[in-house]
Amino acid sequence: MRSEFNLIRVAREMLEVKRDDVIVGIGDDCAVVDVGVKLALTTDCIHEETDLPRGIKPEEVGHLALAVNLSDLAGCGAKPLFFLYTITLSDRWIGDFDRILLGMRDLAKKYDVAIVGGDTDFGRELHISGFAIGVFKRFVGRDKAKVGDKVCITGLLGKAQLSLEQLMSGLSRENLAYPQSLFKPEPRVFEGFRIAKHANAMTDISDSLAISLHQISEMSEVGIMIYEDRIPLNHLTKFVSYEKALDLFLYSGGDYELLYTSNICEHVCIGEVVEGFGVRIVRKDGSVEDVEFRGYEHSVES
Amino acid sequence: MRSEFNLIRVAREMLEVKRDDVIVGIGDDCAVVDVGVKLALTTDCIHEETDLPRGIKPEEVGHLALAVNLSDLAGCGAKPLFFLYTITLSDRWIGDFDRILLGMRDLAKKYDVAIVGGDTDFGRELHISGFAIGVFKRFVGRDKAKVGDKVCITGLLGKAQLSLEQLMSGLSRENLAYPQSLFKPEPRVFEGFRIAKHANAMTDISDSLAISLHQISEMSEVGIMIYEDRIPLNHLTKFVSYEKALDLFLYSGGDYELLYTSNICEHVCIGEVVEGFGVRIVRKDGSVEDVEFRGYEHSVES
Repeated sequence: MRSEFNLIRVAREMLEVKRDDVIVGIGDDCAVVDVGVKLALTTDCIHEETDLPRGIKPEEVGHLALAVNLSDLAGCGAKPLFFLYTITLSDRWIGDFDRILLGMRDLAKKYDVAIVGGDTDFGRELHISGFAIGVFKRFVGRDKAKVGDKVCITGLLGKAQLSLEQLMSGLSRENLAYPQSLFKPEPRVFEGFRIAKHANAMTDISDSLAISLHQISEMSEVGIMIYEDRIPLNHLTKFVSYEKALDLFLYSGGDYELLYTSNICEHVCIGEVVEGFGVRIVRKDGSVEDVEFRGYEHSVES
Repeated sequence: MRSEFNLIRVAREMLEVKRDDVIVGIGDDCAVVDVGVKLALTTDCIHEETDLPRGIKPEEVGHLALAVNLSDLAGCGAKPLFFLYTITLSDRWIGDFDRILLGMRDLAKKYDVAIVGGDTDFGRELHISGFAIGVFKRFVGRDKAKVGDKVCITGLLGKAQLSLEQLMSGLSRENLAYPQSLFKPEPRVFEGFRIAKHANAMTDISDSLAISLHQISEMSEVGIMIYEDRIPLNHLTKFVSYEKALDLFLYSGGDYELLYTSNICEHVCIGEVVEGFGVRIVRKDGSVEDVEFRGYEHSVES
């Protein structure tokens, strides 16, 4: 897991630019540039081997390719305007090209996003990269969490990974606990734009809650304390043990909820920002443990 | 070849949007959107199997990933400002990540482009998608060529494909005719920005001169006549037969020169825009032939 983040750190150091029109460069959910108006820019890709669960429909692939980018914009409080994609089709997917675009288009319509560019070619593996441009009233990064802030999430976590594990254990799609979370996650576009009015820090939870908490903690140079007894797990303990449920909630990805810190909590409050550094959890018995830096392994096959 | 263009047509029809802030949508080198200022947006990807010649250095891979996008912007007369990428690393390339970024960064510096976003993951094949944003004084698309315009290209064609064929026939890199054209093509950024002052239509030549001519002809609803005796071939006939040289010039890609129509020709004039439709060549014996719609097959292996 760390290796991906190490490479991102290498990139950040190598590509750092000091320019008046670059407000936020590489390293947050989005970059912010000033072209007269301030724009949020982001890019994210999905590909067959690591991001697509077995049985996903072409429309859902298109939905997902756009959703991961809209989620990044939402994580900064930006409203999406434009989207471009590159798609590499493998033999298996060529016949589904129009259905992939259909899924992309339907999600774009929902959030009034114009798809203005695309590039298509052929390769061994289906690969879609997306680029989204948004505008914001107030940009929220990961680096301004304040001591005393509430730590909040927009919804329940662990549903996508639970469903993925069920799928991989042989369950059919219809029998999964939360197929929608796995195959067609909804980016929190409206929520992000609204939360940005008051949040001090925000990010979308793509890899895991734990990683997102660590990122805010590190970039804001604060500590974060979360409380086990505030973590809602009923949606998971219906299917798995309590300890497994807690692990899924903290360390799995794919739900595309938002994590934010603010003095106003509109959603589920799981903790608070404290002095110091690091991310810790207060267990029900009162003991305090470190929250590990680990999460979604970027592979649906292993 | 046609299949890729058929898919682009499917995409254009499915994703067409009518919005005041979308000036040019899918279908040209760049999209143009209005966010208060007008921006040119483009996206292009390269991947191992189809775009990277044997023996290419990591720095050259990074250069190429940015160059193909800068070339698209140049083809519209736009000056590049910002660049984002997604990179999927295969095992073979992980150790070269910093060298890939170095090549990208060096080209970015040359044209004062800020690299503001990146996403990194792992897969079976090296894959880099790029996304570039530019500004322009005057946008030049493919659809406004005028009868009477001169048809011009910014430089000599066929050098990349000639070198690729030499490489594939067993020649070593040092002995290729034009290694620079194959491994490190230069996007015509300054030229595009300057030509845009007067050109009526312009595009970068990525697939082949023939395809670019057909695209301008179709989108502008004009005919194009080129003249064999104006086509410079000495740089190719040093290495291959005359007929092969002409074929390389017309039907191969990868040189990233610009094609434009204008009443001013700053570079090599090869023909003119005429009434009617289609692309034809006047041979030296006075006979007239159709120029075929064919070009670079998007594969370095076959």
